[in-house]
Amino acid sequence: MGPDSPARTPEPPYYAVIFTSVRTLVDDAEYARTAEQMVDLARLQPGFLGVESAREASGLGITVSYWTTLDAIAAWKAQADHLAAQRLGRERWYGSYELRVARVERAYGFQRPGP
Amino acid sequence: MGPDSPARTPEPPYYAVIFTSVRTLVDDAEYARTAEQMVDLARLQPGFLGVESAREASGLGITVSYWTTLDAIAAWKAQADHLAAQRLGRERWYGSYELRVARVERAYGFQRPGP
Repeated sequence: MGPDSPARTPEPPYYAVIFTSVRTLVDDAEYARTAEQMVDLARLQPGFLGVESAREASGLGITVSYWTTLDAIAAWKAQADHLAAQRLGRERWYGSYELRVARVERAYGFQRPGP
Repeated sequence: MGPDSPARTPEPPYYAVIFTSVRTLVDDAEYARTAEQMVDLARLQPGFLGVESAREASGLGITVSYWTTLDAIAAWKAQADHLAAQRLGRERWYGSYELRVARVERAYGFQRPGP
């Protein structure tokens, strides 16, 4: 559902929302469609910086989205279509999840030298 | 490589290391063995709180480890076997990665009610 590389984020500080979830076994197509829509919608929100997402075949998934401020995160949490998706998540798609809001204080990267 | 559920962490504040990586196509068995060893070793470190990990078939993976303090993170980064694994990571296993150190300020969870 996300891109296939680490998000390109600016110099810290900025904020991360770490969303770790376990999927139920139901409703794969609708879940995938909604997850994709939510990523597209998040990209349009003020203060959005990037997103990374991965899920194991076992069902454990991690999505990390990056934001300029806590206010931007609060606005995204309260966005109407996102609220509806959150409700479906609790009703159908997730066995459990944990959501953590964190302030990124330091970051560095590595890029393999070209061939 | 991690457990199949979100990490059980204490009340914030605490720290998260968000490690987002793209695997090369080489050396799958040794990579998997080393990754497992590193998780086992991290669990023994002072200040370790938990770890979550997921990787897409496409190669993008996210591992988030949780720690009590920045000092605990620094000590783990400098642990000898971990340093050797980091070097192999850059030499062989990762096409790119991004590592972010963040202070978790807020957290909440959801657990599906039993059947």
